[in-house]
Amino acid sequence: MSEPPSRVEKPAPGSAILLAHCPDQKGLVAAITEFIFRNGGNILSLEQHVDREIGRFFIRAEWELGGFLIERERIGEGFKTLIANRTGMSWRIYFSGERQRVAVLVSKAPHCLLDILARVRSGEWSVDLRLVLSNHPELAWVAEAFGAPFHHLPAGSRSPEDLEAGQLELLRGAEIDLVILARYMLILGPGFVSAFPERIINIHHSFLPAFTGARPYHRAYARGVKLIGATAHYVTEELDEGPIIEQDVVRASHVNTVGDLTRMGHDVEKIVLARGISRHLDRKTLVYGNRTIVFT
Amino acid sequence: MSEPPSRVEKPAPGSAILLAHCPDQKGLVAAITEFIFRNGGNILSLEQHVDREIGRFFIRAEWELGGFLIERERIGEGFKTLIANRTGMSWRIYFSGERQRVAVLVSKAPHCLLDILARVRSGEWSVDLRLVLSNHPELAWVAEAFGAPFHHLPAGSRSPEDLEAGQLELLRGAEIDLVILARYMLILGPGFVSAFPERIINIHHSFLPAFTGARPYHRAYARGVKLIGATAHYVTEELDEGPIIEQDVVRASHVNTVGDLTRMGHDVEKIVLARGISRHLDRKTLVYGNRTIVFT
Amino acid sequence: MSEPPSRVEKPAPGSAILLAHCPDQKGLVAAITEFIFRNGGNILSLEQHVDREIGRFFIRAEWELGGFLIERERIGEGFKTLIANRTGMSWRIYFSGERQRVAVLVSKAPHCLLDILARVRSGEWSVDLRLVLSNHPELAWVAEAFGAPFHHLPAGSRSPEDLEAGQLELLRGAEIDLVILARYMLILGPGFVSAFPERIINIHHSFLPAFTGARPYHRAYARGVKLIGATAHYVTEELDEGPIIEQDVVRASHVNTVGDLTRMGHDVEKIVLARGISRHLDRKTLVYGNRTIVFT
Amino acid sequence: MSEPPSRVEKPAPGSAILLAHCPDQKGLVAAITEFIFRNGGNILSLEQHVDREIGRFFIRAEWELGGFLIERERIGEGFKTLIANRTGMSWRIYFSGERQRVAVLVSKAPHCLLDILARVRSGEWSVDLRLVLSNHPELAWVAEAFGAPFHHLPAGSRSPEDLEAGQLELLRGAEIDLVILARYMLILGPGFVSAFPERIINIHHSFLPAFTGARPYHRAYARGVKLIGATAHYVTEELDEGPIIEQDVVRASHVNTVGDLTRMGHDVEKIVLARGISRHLDRKTLVYGNRTIVFT
Repeated sequence: MSEPPSRVEKPAPGSAILLAHCPDQKGLVAAITEFIFRNGGNILSLEQHVDREIGRFFIRAEWELGGFLIERERIGEGFKTLIANRTGMSWRIYFSGERQRVAVLVSKAPHCLLDILARVRSGEWSVDLRLVLSNHPELAWVAEAFGAPFHHLPAGSRSPEDLEAGQLELLRGAEIDLVILARYMLILGPGFVSAFPERIINIHHSFLPAFTGARPYHRAYARGVKLIGATAHYVTEELDEGPIIEQDVVRASHVNTVGDLTRMGHDVEKIVLARGISRHLDRKTLVYGNRTIVFT
Repeated sequence: MSEPPSRVEKPAPGSAILLAHCPDQKGLVAAITEFIFRNGGNILSLEQHVDREIGRFFIRAEWELGGFLIERERIGEGFKTLIANRTGMSWRIYFSGERQRVAVLVSKAPHCLLDILARVRSGEWSVDLRLVLSNHPELAWVAEAFGAPFHHLPAGSRSPEDLEAGQLELLRGAEIDLVILARYMLILGPGFVSAFPERIINIHHSFLPAFTGARPYHRAYARGVKLIGATAHYVTEELDEGPIIEQDVVRASHVNTVGDLTRMGHDVEKIVLARGISRHLDRKTLVYGNRTIVFT
Repeated sequence: MSEPPSRVEKPAPGSAILLAHCPDQKGLVAAITEFIFRNGGNILSLEQHVDREIGRFFIRAEWELGGFLIERERIGEGFKTLIANRTGMSWRIYFSGERQRVAVLVSKAPHCLLDILARVRSGEWSVDLRLVLSNHPELAWVAEAFGAPFHHLPAGSRSPEDLEAGQLELLRGAEIDLVILARYMLILGPGFVSAFPERIINIHHSFLPAFTGARPYHRAYARGVKLIGATAHYVTEELDEGPIIEQDVVRASHVNTVGDLTRMGHDVEKIVLARGISRHLDRKTLVYGNRTIVFT
Repeated sequence: MSEPPSRVEKPAPGSAILLAHCPDQKGLVAAITEFIFRNGGNILSLEQHVDREIGRFFIRAEWELGGFLIERERIGEGFKTLIANRTGMSWRIYFSGERQRVAVLVSKAPHCLLDILARVRSGEWSVDLRLVLSNHPELAWVAEAFGAPFHHLPAGSRSPEDLEAGQLELLRGAEIDLVILARYMLILGPGFVSAFPERIINIHHSFLPAFTGARPYHRAYARGVKLIGATAHYVTEELDEGPIIEQDVVRASHVNTVGDLTRMGHDVEKIVLARGISRHLDRKTLVYGNRTIVFT
């Protein structure tokens, strides 16, 4: 097989990205930006806002590591001591160029998996796609076409607990950072969900909260809606109730059958899922309560 | 007060518009178009489709009346005898240029009423806007600004039945063809609804079936949706469950407060309502079951 | 390599599809539908309109062939004699289930080709994808991943005329019905274009007529537009001036670099191109002058 | 005439808003936020980014004035001395609750003026709408309906220079902050434009840069586009070439006449213009070169 274009690695030293939230108080941005400036960092972008209804402060800041006085491994420690501990802050610092390890769970519909593998292989996302897991064998050809490892763990022959134990073993063995449910049709149990908090992204084939649960296109048809949609969201224990990352819609009409809606919906699903994944990979999402802050 | 531009009346004799549906069978379009052709009519547009899941035929046909051999008053009779009676057809024939008599029901929010009255006064819609009814006095200034008759029927001092009786008396007295609920915040009783079947259009401030009922923007905020929407639909006895005519959405983000969503939503509401009304006025809507066929 | 799902062939006898236009006159729809009805056809859908500015009649009609009295091969002849010859009609009759032979021309960008091959392989389009032609070797891996034949005809070493002669020989040898330019970066000469009238679909990476020609994303960035778009159109001799089939846009902002616009644009391009191709494959497009009628 | 709802004034002391840009260097955000923090200000929102292609820094920061140690009148002076002078910064500080004085220029089309006056009168925008100027008398009724002062300055009887002199005298006499061209059909001369730099907002009835100049809907029809749009932009000396604030589109089809496109376009125009005006009034726009930064 001929070679795909090699992925362009971002040149070291790259940048650091802070995502944080805490109760609002005066001086937070000043403290954070002074911390960056005093240590020689140049801020590339900063977005901050206060949700006044709940009095909470949210921030994303990215600064260049070239010339930054604290070495990469100790930035977190310094930030914790000087800023986070004093302010009750929930925070994470990431670094550009980190290649996240990704697993994709699928069932029988190929469109989202095809789209994801195409993006990975053509270098749009710099991720390490380690696993494709499925409860059905049908999509083996997709993984194979892109040279991705495919594991078929059938659901029927074992208990849900056994299935999840097998899945978790594979995911942990591959040190997975992000799990993508690309039209995976089984419901994840609480054990699975809690193993990857805010690190499982699902695509639901409706404009949530409309048509939660099964067969949304059939129900959209029956209700006679004039737009159909898709929603990318983080998975929580409650089905289709997790924090929304991205949504979009496409116009439908009375001439469209359930089959038409399904086909048209596939395109919205794959694009909305890809946008949700991109935001996550770019460290632009921050979950608080049941809402996702998506920085620009 | 200076004069608005006078409305351009469409020149007689105009056109006839057939809206019809019946169980599908061979030869329906041929029979209908032959009826038109044999009587000298020139078809301007024809849209027809068969919903194969339910085996039902739907059609909208418009033809020029100039040179048509049957006089306007007898077209229905002829059509009934030659076509409709043999096919179990539900049908209506309308004529271009008929000015429909319209009533608008409002409560306190002015944006939809302002938009409707602006369209009427500037000649976009050729309707006879006979009544603005409200359960509150606040929007009297809007009606007054456009010279529309405003009736304040307060809800508090009387029973819902009494209120509706008063409303119906006014509507019947004015021979109203179409009732528009332009953010009217009371629920209509079955007596009112059944008095205007498929002739009451409501704007609901959400993307139905998401957020039926009260305070949809508050609930959209709480759910953290990334799009907010509005839905124009015919009113049936079940709240927010009637056949949808038109929907649209606008992008929202985490920085938007409930107040922001409300403001942004107002623009979607007024545009979606206006599109729904336009389709109805143009005789482009046909209700079957809980779905609206909206011809192009 | 494991097997993709086998494509579901539509069951014979399927349906016939008429696309036609002619100067408007009375009785056209009646004549056409009577022709279908008298011969035992059941019309599944019919869309017709008259462009009154130019006095021209356009129609698409689809009817079931089951029970139709004229055999498939002689329908055209009958239609021509009874209808077309009398009315100066331009017309074509197609049959559902015909698998069109398709060639895709590409250069270096993989996203549209990946999307097309994914749709073909997963059975969304029932086409016979016979050739992928490129003036560069880079996308051989894409064709290979999906088992599509790839031909590399480099441009540099020969004259444009020679290159086109080589391309045309391949296309004719494969009896190609439809040529798709999936971000093919060379301009086709008049000889190529005239060999496939209304059968070459190009995707241009801008909202035409804005940013015709080269580097539209760079120019969109420089102009500071707030939406970027893509356009699928039939190719004519004038660059980027052919009849438009489909367009769509996506929102951009000041934070987006040219690289961001390019990435975001790729998603719009592939979806818009796919919609354009679908409409063509479904025999829902009809070109008149420089406009495309796209039936619903 | 009955009373519109009184506008809710934001409670003093409100907030201060900084809009600024300068060559990028380290420490800019830290310096700005320290200036705010040291003087007791609580930052409500901050958005900053660096355009790396041109090495330029852009910021919008809003902070509460309650408890701020510098009095409102001297904030600018302090900011200039401590920050701006050292960094070559272009900047402005605004205060929430400032009511801008607005003039609207119109010709004959009422839809944008109606929409603007409705928003002002119902309290959506807290502005002082001082003047409606027109080169035609037709829209006097609109201004009158909303109690807005209307001035008819006809173009025909005087030279363009005389007309502009008359307009500028009125605008200066009313101390106008913002001029809105609400489908004003004359071209402004350089003298007018330079009198209100970055303070004239025009709505153009196309998706710029497509269809600059006259009769865009006719040309959109002729080109057969599948989407029509509108663009709100700041006016510069070059017609339709100024920095874009907002754009949107609506889907069109082959059945739409020029008249249909015009009607459908009116809705996009009024909404896009209103969004552009809102961003400007909220001090969320910053012009650099020919691009508008529109903060979220």
